[in-house]
Formats: sequence, C-alpha cells, structure tokens
Amino acid sequence: MATIFTKIIEREIPAQIVAEDDKHIAFLDINPLVEGHTLVVPKAEVDYIYDMADEDYLALQAFAKKVAKAVKAGIPCLRVGVAVIGLEVPHTHIHLVPLNKMDDINFSRKKLNPSAAELAAAADKIREKM
Amino acid sequence: MATIFTKIIEREIPAQIVAEDDKHIAFLDINPLVEGHTLVVPKAEVDYIYDMADEDYLALQAFAKKVAKAVKAGIPCLRVGVAVIGLEVPHTHIHLVPLNKMDDINFSRKKLNPSAAELAAAADKIREKM
Repeated sequence: MATIFTKIIEREIPAQIVAEDDKHIAFLDINPLVEGHTLVVPKAEVDYIYDMADEDYLALQAFAKKVAKAVKAGIPCLRVGVAVIGLEVPHTHIHLVPLNKMDDINFSRKKLNPSAAELAAAADKIREKM
Repeated sequence: MATIFTKIIEREIPAQIVAEDDKHIAFLDINPLVEGHTLVVPKAEVDYIYDMADEDYLALQAFAKKVAKAVKAGIPCLRVGVAVIGLEVPHTHIHLVPLNKMDDINFSRKKLNPSAAELAAAADKIREKM
C-alpha cells in the first residue's frame, strides 16, 4: 500500500509543497513543531534512510540542503535543525525545523495545529526563497 | 579558540573514538541519550552544517552513513535516529542515536551519565562493526 507520503507525491492527498525535483519532494508538516517545519522525502519508498543506495542518499542530502537554506531564509530562526526518526511513517523523511531554542526540536512535546491559511502562508515564505 | 570537538580531534581531551578518517571523526557522547549515542564531526571547524561547502557536506553525510551502520550493528535498536541541532557547540556535529522509541531522541530529557568503563564497552561494540 502506498505510504501517506507517496499519496502526497501523487497528489492524492493535498500538501503545501515547497520544493520538488524528479526524485525528491519537500512539503510542510501539517502538525509542525514550529512554523516552517518541513519534511524532505525521496520519491522512492525506502523505509530506513541508511538503507538507501549511496547515490540516492547523497542526492537526498543535497536536496535537503537546498530546502534548508530556503527555510532559513523564509522563516526567521537561529538555524535549521535536522532530525530523522522514522518510527511512524515507513518512508524516509528528513525533518527540517527552524530553531530558536533546543526545545523547538523536541518531538515529544505537543505539536501545533495550524489552519490551512497559516500553512499556506508559511509555505509561501519558503517557496519565494527557493 | 579551539572548540571542544577540535580538542578531541587533537587528542587534548580524551574520548571514545569509534571511527576516523582524514576529514572526519566519530566518538561517543559522554552524556548520551541512550547507550551508543555517537557524534559525527568534520575536522574543519564549521559552525552550521548547511554553511559547509557541498563537497564537504556530502563527504560528512557519507561518513555518517558508515558510522550509523556500525552503530546499528553494534547496539541493538530498531534504527539509528539522526539529529543536527547545534545550538550548544559551534562546531557541526551529527547525533546518531540508537532508537527503540520516539522519546529516545528527545534532547529535552535528562541525559545519561555512564562510567568510563560503560562508555568504553559501548565504543568497543561499535568499533568491532566498523
């Protein structure tokens, strides 16, 4: 069965997509830790990031770097933090989280629940820096 | 002034080093979230990971992948989680954290304080898989 991320890639589920190329996509987390929290995903369904072929893994990391620069340019923060956890959705994803303090990247705390308009506004800020 | 990580690289401060090449080093966090929590560090002092030159950044990610495979092979876990935060030490470092549950990578919770013997034992388990 397709993962939720594949459904986003195939436009079966809507998402605020901020960047895309032939092998990767980046879109906003709908329950972000902070405004601008972005997921970077390879289009191929690989569960565990370190099971990816070296070439695919490095292409994903290069794509993530480009997206992270746009996130930092669009969303004011000290830096963009990175997390790869992957215990929930079996499709590799890199979290990019605008950080102003350590607790901004604490996945154990309550997530935000922004409106569609708030998500769209955050995505616009990132897209215009891509 | 040299960062604490540069002092480890230059053997001015002891650490349980699990992997090293000419441009990178990996050693155990002395206050780990869980056993086997490893830091992957470029020898060049760059504060923010996304300020690294593309070539250096990708070499670091490739090195991290090799270390992560050894961590997973040496320390029983579901997978190795990844975090880059960088609000504390101004020298890029990738956290590799053996995960069995989401909270294992919660940096806001209390860290462990293993003995030197416990750290050495964890490092041995990883080194023998490198």
